[in-house]
Amino acid sequence: MAALPPGTQSPFVWNLRVYWEDTDAGGVVFYANYLKFFERARTEWLRALGVEQESLRRERQMQFVVTHSEVRYLRPARLDDWLQISVQPSQSGRASVLITQEARRDGELLAEGRIRIACVDAVSFALQRMPEFLLVPAAGKPAA
Amino acid sequence: MAALPPGTQSPFVWNLRVYWEDTDAGGVVFYANYLKFFERARTEWLRALGVEQESLRRERQMQFVVTHSEVRYLRPARLDDWLQISVQPSQSGRASVLITQEARRDGELLAEGRIRIACVDAVSFALQRMPEFLLVPAAGKPAA
Amino acid sequence: MAALPPGTQSPFVWNLRVYWEDTDAGGVVFYANYLKFFERARTEWLRALGVEQESLRRERQMQFVVTHSEVRYLRPARLDDWLQISVQPSQSGRASVLITQEARRDGELLAEGRIRIACVDAVSFALQRMPEFLLVPAAGKPAA
Amino acid sequence: MAALPPGTQSPFVWNLRVYWEDTDAGGVVFYANYLKFFERARTEWLRALGVEQESLRRERQMQFVVTHSEVRYLRPARLDDWLQISVQPSQSGRASVLITQEARRDGELLAEGRIRIACVDAVSFALQRMPEFLLVPAAGKPAA
Repeated sequence: MAALPPGTQSPFVWNLRVYWEDTDAGGVVFYANYLKFFERARTEWLRALGVEQESLRRERQMQFVVTHSEVRYLRPARLDDWLQISVQPSQSGRASVLITQEARRDGELLAEGRIRIACVDAVSFALQRMPEFLLVPAAGKPAA
Repeated sequence: MAALPPGTQSPFVWNLRVYWEDTDAGGVVFYANYLKFFERARTEWLRALGVEQESLRRERQMQFVVTHSEVRYLRPARLDDWLQISVQPSQSGRASVLITQEARRDGELLAEGRIRIACVDAVSFALQRMPEFLLVPAAGKPAA
Repeated sequence: MAALPPGTQSPFVWNLRVYWEDTDAGGVVFYANYLKFFERARTEWLRALGVEQESLRRERQMQFVVTHSEVRYLRPARLDDWLQISVQPSQSGRASVLITQEARRDGELLAEGRIRIACVDAVSFALQRMPEFLLVPAAGKPAA
Repeated sequence: MAALPPGTQSPFVWNLRVYWEDTDAGGVVFYANYLKFFERARTEWLRALGVEQESLRRERQMQFVVTHSEVRYLRPARLDDWLQISVQPSQSGRASVLITQEARRDGELLAEGRIRIACVDAVSFALQRMPEFLLVPAAGKPAA
């Protein structure tokens, strides 16, 4: 697994389409589904770092869980929209990582989220130390 | 666990409300969600027979899986609708049970499904013999 | 429509079962689905106040939208769990209402949310004034 | 909009990843979610034909609905799997089109579906004639 290069600040971006399943009778994306979009982008970001969560679970009995989520909904997304979902780890400790995420359509900000992730034992759900590859150095202070 | 009384023919019925999450931008219930409604009713039907699937999985390493599903969509259900979902086991063998299900609103038939259920080992997914309590006697032929 | 009685502080509670559809491969309820549970409870709370959202949309072209959501996840819920979801309006203005919600199992707190709701035109999504029946008087200050 | 070329028989294929949201506590993809996967592939197939359903709904007040679905589940898909979902219109009339769909992983068949689509007025849900671009000529008989 690759470590996050020290000082990396540009966010990972994942594109996705809004399908019927994502919308509700209001004609727009149902508010819970932004958490699905954010999760898909985090999964692809982990994959880009070389981490497959199914393997992690089977081979190392480790799993990531969300301990806190926050979403601001600014403008509605609609059927057939092509969205850009970003992933930006903004703060991390031994126990959790805070990830800032945005959903945009053609540059326009639709929703923004702050998701805190922790690492647990996949069976007992007891908290584990975050794996090294997710430790984000503080801005301007490259990891030694 | 109670056995299905021989010759039982009246269906089990479970009521549920249509919420925002169930609808799509067409203003009606998304077609995949009838399979969720049918599954909820089957879970409650099993509970009425004394079967908790989570316990089944943990204690006996057994799980039910759907091997075939078929749904006819007749009329759309909408937000706030109060639906009646029926469960009627109509045919069973050692390896699977066929369950007929309907979704109705005030008596009006909205969708009907035929769902075939099998029983597997919860880890290997290898087929198991159906548990006795799900064996439905053929109509008019009470189980000896 | 009934107005919220002045000084009402005891929360509305809605019960629901955790089904297969709500869980993920981690064996627990998927984090986005607490927003579904919270929405179901808010819908039933509105119904208890005499408000049907589908009618609201059709007859008055009004719709509620979530502008901000926040969830703290404390303990996982699992398949077959019977949950109590509370709804407690805690603060309101002309433009939005803040609703505090909890998910509990046998008294144990699993997740807590803070959901801000606004009212929009169902077609243009332009902000509307909150309807009177949702205006919550400040604690200890009964609405005149 | 492009017409389906006469005699076209090779299926359209859409790739997708299995995410946490798609799985259930059994560790595999929840059975209703194959209908989501099939719908995504049909949407992308329509897009490849030049049809955007949101525009269709707004500009021509037309919408496709599923009138019948059938799925055979052969092998489970799991988290992180990369699936190929095919779309093959196999039969069409004035009122509906039958679409055969498969979900495969590395060539291995996991599920197969037969989905019947009709075209309705987006407001009244009254049946419409299928648009010309979806009329599939019978095998071996190119449309004149």
